[in-house]
Amino acid sequence: MQEREVITSTANTKIKETAKLQQKKYRNQTGLFLLEGAKPIEEAQASGVKIQCVYTTEKYLSKFSEFEEKITLVTPSVLEKISTTDSMPEAVAVAQQKKYNLDEIKDARRLVLIENIKDAGNLGTLIRCACAFSMDAILLCADTVDIYNPKVVRSTVGAMFKMPIVKTSLKEAKEIFSSSKFIASVVNHEDVVNPEKIDYSNPFVLMLGSEADGLTQEAIAAADIKTTIPISSKTESLNLSMAGSILFYISSR
Amino acid sequence: MQEREVITSTANTKIKETAKLQQKKYRNQTGLFLLEGAKPIEEAQASGVKIQCVYTTEKYLSKFSEFEEKITLVTPSVLEKISTTDSMPEAVAVAQQKKYNLDEIKDARRLVLIENIKDAGNLGTLIRCACAFSMDAILLCADTVDIYNPKVVRSTVGAMFKMPIVKTSLKEAKEIFSSSKFIASVVNHEDVVNPEKIDYSNPFVLMLGSEADGLTQEAIAAADIKTTIPISSKTESLNLSMAGSILFYISSR
Repeated sequence: MQEREVITSTANTKIKETAKLQQKKYRNQTGLFLLEGAKPIEEAQASGVKIQCVYTTEKYLSKFSEFEEKITLVTPSVLEKISTTDSMPEAVAVAQQKKYNLDEIKDARRLVLIENIKDAGNLGTLIRCACAFSMDAILLCADTVDIYNPKVVRSTVGAMFKMPIVKTSLKEAKEIFSSSKFIASVVNHEDVVNPEKIDYSNPFVLMLGSEADGLTQEAIAAADIKTTIPISSKTESLNLSMAGSILFYISSR
Repeated sequence: MQEREVITSTANTKIKETAKLQQKKYRNQTGLFLLEGAKPIEEAQASGVKIQCVYTTEKYLSKFSEFEEKITLVTPSVLEKISTTDSMPEAVAVAQQKKYNLDEIKDARRLVLIENIKDAGNLGTLIRCACAFSMDAILLCADTVDIYNPKVVRSTVGAMFKMPIVKTSLKEAKEIFSSSKFIASVVNHEDVVNPEKIDYSNPFVLMLGSEADGLTQEAIAAADIKTTIPISSKTESLNLSMAGSILFYISSR
């Protein structure tokens, strides 16, 4: 067996370049992102994500035998430097972002449109839930957190690699999906329809807005239907991922 | 107007005692807990929680006029010491825990039983959602995170003061609610019933287990009905708060 070289210095150029992928700017420049932990790496690979490089330590080397020629051995302190989690993962991989364009999903019948979501955990949970309830694709509009943010990647638990996720604008979405019904999830609006009364058998785009401000006026104006989940008067509102998960569920029955 | 004294030292005895309430041990010893921010303090007071003391700075004093004789003025660095959030709140209050016993809720018809939930954010979200969908009370069993943990208090957004939450055991719950149907939320089990097929018009106890391990064997064995939300084969499972919110929603229609 060939002796492997071990990177021991956090000042190593390759390690410094890899650690930069923790920042959105470098992910955008390179089209790469980080995967942390054995299961996320395996799931991404199984879903067709191209893995460029897997960093692991001697201790966990045997776990990653299928990545043979892509493995780079590092010391625990080097692995810690490129990892973004509190507890050090068994490996960190560099992978290629999957890019979709709107044309590839133009026949999708069950779409989610997400606007201005800033919280990585919320976005990850929504993606996981959209996948669980068989949504066909996700459209990310306005100023939504980067899906390749390590926290989003972690919280989707692999779901983000199983469905197309496309950055677009409301205007473009309205053009491409012109025969779909646009449904706005709102609070404190008049003329809302109970989500149970909506026909989900025809193509639709379910629009969800930010945690703090909801959908933009533009999105609400673009909606064919406005809906609100009925809740007890004792509480002000549901949080975004709860409301999203309930609406995905209702639309999937 | 009387001149108020301002506590300027984090070494002040009263401040040190207050900061100790960040720990479960001291909350249990004293029956007190911390409320952080203007809205949580006002909501708790409106829901009948007894506020003992409100710490705020000169800058925000006018916001808390209704707490007149309970106010203690402190410097920003002292407020920061007793606060648990990254961004300093406008005030931190010391309040009395509300204790319920099982006897007070024995006529409850829509109950949630929570086992071994360790994540404060998950517990808070579940409480908020249980309140939104008109559950009558929550039973906390086994080793569940303290509801007076500051992160739970924050994430319930006031909902925890609007419904009884009782620490108990599965055995005791089965005795007191002997005429209720016990429903276990499970994954990967046989003999499960679709949650839509369950009759929620009679008294029931909906049991939810930990994020990692689900319900204990004991709880599953004690169930009259086992249920699973049907999801796409592409995903392994829903997370705990998504599954909880969907089940509360279904039971409330």
